Amino acid sequence: MTTTAEIISIGDELLYGQTLDTNAHWISHKLDEYNIKVFQRTTIGDDADQILNAFATAAERVDIVLITGGLGPTKDDLTKSLLAEYFGVGMVRHEEVLRDITLLFAKASREVTALNAQQADLPANCQKITNPVGTAPGMWFYENNTVFVAMPGVPYEMKSIMTQGILPKLHEMFSKGVLHHHIIKTIGITESSLSDLIEDWEVNLPNHIKLAYLPTKGQVKLRMTGSGDNLNTLKQEIDALKMAIMPKIAKYVYGFGTDSLEGVIGQLLNNNNLTLATAESCTGGYLAHMITSVPGSSRYFKGSVIAYSNEVKITQLGVSTEDLKQQGAVSEEVAKAMAEGVRKELNADIAIATTGIAGPDGGTAEKPVGTVWIAYSDKHKTLAKKFNFSRDRTFIVHWSALAALNMIRLNVGVK
Amino acid sequence: MTTTAEIISIGDELLYGQTLDTNAHWISHKLDEYNIKVFQRTTIGDDADQILNAFATAAERVDIVLITGGLGPTKDDLTKSLLAEYFGVGMVRHEEVLRDITLLFAKASREVTALNAQQADLPANCQKITNPVGTAPGMWFYENNTVFVAMPGVPYEMKSIMTQGILPKLHEMFSKGVLHHHIIKTIGITESSLSDLIEDWEVNLPNHIKLAYLPTKGQVKLRMTGSGDNLNTLKQEIDALKMAIMPKIAKYVYGFGTDSLEGVIGQLLNNNNLTLATAESCTGGYLAHMITSVPGSSRYFKGSVIAYSNEVKITQLGVSTEDLKQQGAVSEEVAKAMAEGVRKELNADIAIATTGIAGPDGGTAEKPVGTVWIAYSDKHKTLAKKFNFSRDRTFIVHWSALAALNMIRLNVGVK
Repeated sequence: MTTTAEIISIGDELLYGQTLDTNAHWISHKLDEYNIKVFQRTTIGDDADQILNAFATAAERVDIVLITGGLGPTKDDLTKSLLAEYFGVGMVRHEEVLRDITLLFAKASREVTALNAQQADLPANCQKITNPVGTAPGMWFYENNTVFVAMPGVPYEMKSIMTQGILPKLHEMFSKGVLHHHIIKTIGITESSLSDLIEDWEVNLPNHIKLAYLPTKGQVKLRMTGSGDNLNTLKQEIDALKMAIMPKIAKYVYGFGTDSLEGVIGQLLNNNNLTLATAESCTGGYLAHMITSVPGSSRYFKGSVIAYSNEVKITQLGVSTEDLKQQGAVSEEVAKAMAEGVRKELNADIAIATTGIAGPDGGTAEKPVGTVWIAYSDKHKTLAKKFNFSRDRTFIVHWSALAALNMIRLNVGVK
Repeated sequence: MTTTAEIISIGDELLYGQTLDTNAHWISHKLDEYNIKVFQRTTIGDDADQILNAFATAAERVDIVLITGGLGPTKDDLTKSLLAEYFGVGMVRHEEVLRDITLLFAKASREVTALNAQQADLPANCQKITNPVGTAPGMWFYENNTVFVAMPGVPYEMKSIMTQGILPKLHEMFSKGVLHHHIIKTIGITESSLSDLIEDWEVNLPNHIKLAYLPTKGQVKLRMTGSGDNLNTLKQEIDALKMAIMPKIAKYVYGFGTDSLEGVIGQLLNNNNLTLATAESCTGGYLAHMITSVPGSSRYFKGSVIAYSNEVKITQLGVSTEDLKQQGAVSEEVAKAMAEGVRKELNADIAIATTGIAGPDGGTAEKPVGTVWIAYSDKHKTLAKKFNFSRDRTFIVHWSALAALNMIRLNVGVK
């Protein structure tokens, strides 16, 4: 039997379109990892009748009801009292919760008001789930064969409670045995090409190991989910399956699990004791932004010259006026000269350069919008590659930056 | 009587947490502009029983049911046939839709298969709503006092159909008279401070003009919504109200309607025939990325030097080794030297520089994470301002870039 869940998001600000509901999305993704099927998601306002009605209808159709929002100490504090009403119970004060709140407030030299103290009152039939990062605890109920979970709407509080308190309990209750995931992250290949490459392997996967293709902007993740009795056996099995497929896809695999492409590049540079500089035209700073989004990137990233005008390409990067005139700014020659120029100027071991037409204007028949040259340079070699991206300005910039990072990976990785 | 709506989002990929449902968010926001209250949002999978049930329950509680997803030509094509089933009608082929599809496919040298042609079949009781950017048209039904609208799930197709076909019809049907919005966009002031500033004005607003505070990351939008009989009178009235309040808030107002801060900066520079360069340390390229996200920014943006290392600050921007040693990289002196340096190096009229501690590491008691110096330089003056931002790396970078853009606005705007 499939275990089913419904997610109820509560808050007028969601229905007004002021706040984007990323909570329901994140919870859906997590439950999918745990083999729990989200049957429905319901978003409602801060209205008592509507909330009570949502509790009742959800309990009729699913095994698990997950509620976010409405646990703050102010007027929104509707969820908690309505849960007590729904279950027909009173409130019980949890002294340890009050102690935590008092401690937290003392640090900020604030006094605990009666309103704040109410956060320590929970419905009598609920089990308190610790909130490691905030004052409103999560709540767990189990009545009439249905689990109810209530959590604050603040995303990082909800995620902490879910990860540390709720998901392990759900797994214990609804999964026979253990579950193990392994995520392989690829770049530079489409979902369908990847699927073609690993078709033979995929059809022979054992029944207890499922494969999911998870495409995001410009990348495809492969997720293996295995279920069984013994975690070690499962890990070994999935590891062996991974080893069997890696030779076919290694070229496209940049990492595993929670790895990010920019993080992997950083490790690669750190491990090889190499420094990096970039010269950007069409990416306009976005490539450097991706690189510097990694904490500690100042260890290997020296900086960048964003040469949005030809003048800057000439004066700061030493691109020749002749190349600009004869080949144009979007050309192999200029991309290479930019990479070599910035490597020398910024005294870096490795450099990458982008030049292209991000649009919407500036395209020609010969070089339409989306034409991008990316060059890589180190002390041994300089090379460039042409890309033809489609869609709009935002996508072209994003894909160009990904391709540039991937070019670092492919060239630094290979000796 | 308040007009109410329910949004039904259909798609397994939503429930798996693969696709973030931005459609429901966007529709909520738009309906709010039209004084239509979203009562509930429901997300369900590609399952016939569940979809039919969602249609029926929604029709019981609201005036308008808006459905997205499940209108593609493949297996997902469930919504359309289920709507026909729900209303008990057959399908009718719309020849003009087929003609459009055939034309579109001819351009891409593709043949129209029987499956593709089915997109021209619509339930007999529906009114076709043109899809200006795709092959699946929108559908409008009015049965038993309830409006049903079905649209494709592809965001830009949905938005086109909504904006051009659906919202005007909804307005005509449910609003007595006309509606007029005016949005004032501010930066550099919090929601509560803004509210304090305009309190007297706000309490005296006439009943038919509503004010909404719409805070986004680092900015607050003020939206006036007026309803009445005559659009011109309404426009004049709202214009007069705006004029009455502007003197109090002008300093914080960077634009109106769909203006973006980076777009406004671009216009300001263009109008004054000025060029811009940036020198970035803690923003790591994000500031340049914001500036270059505006199409046509190459007209005024010369480029940037991202000086992530002290070495680059010295060699490329002429920052003095002494200042770096004595004041530290995050200081007024270094920020100013960076701005002046990049202005001269890149031969720009105006320059802006950022240097700060984005974290999570690198903070000290004296200069904690979030300490940021931003400098502005033109041929007449160089000045710098210190900011103390909180939260995490992503926020500090974002707020620093916004503050930098705002500093351009405040200094170029004032002669």
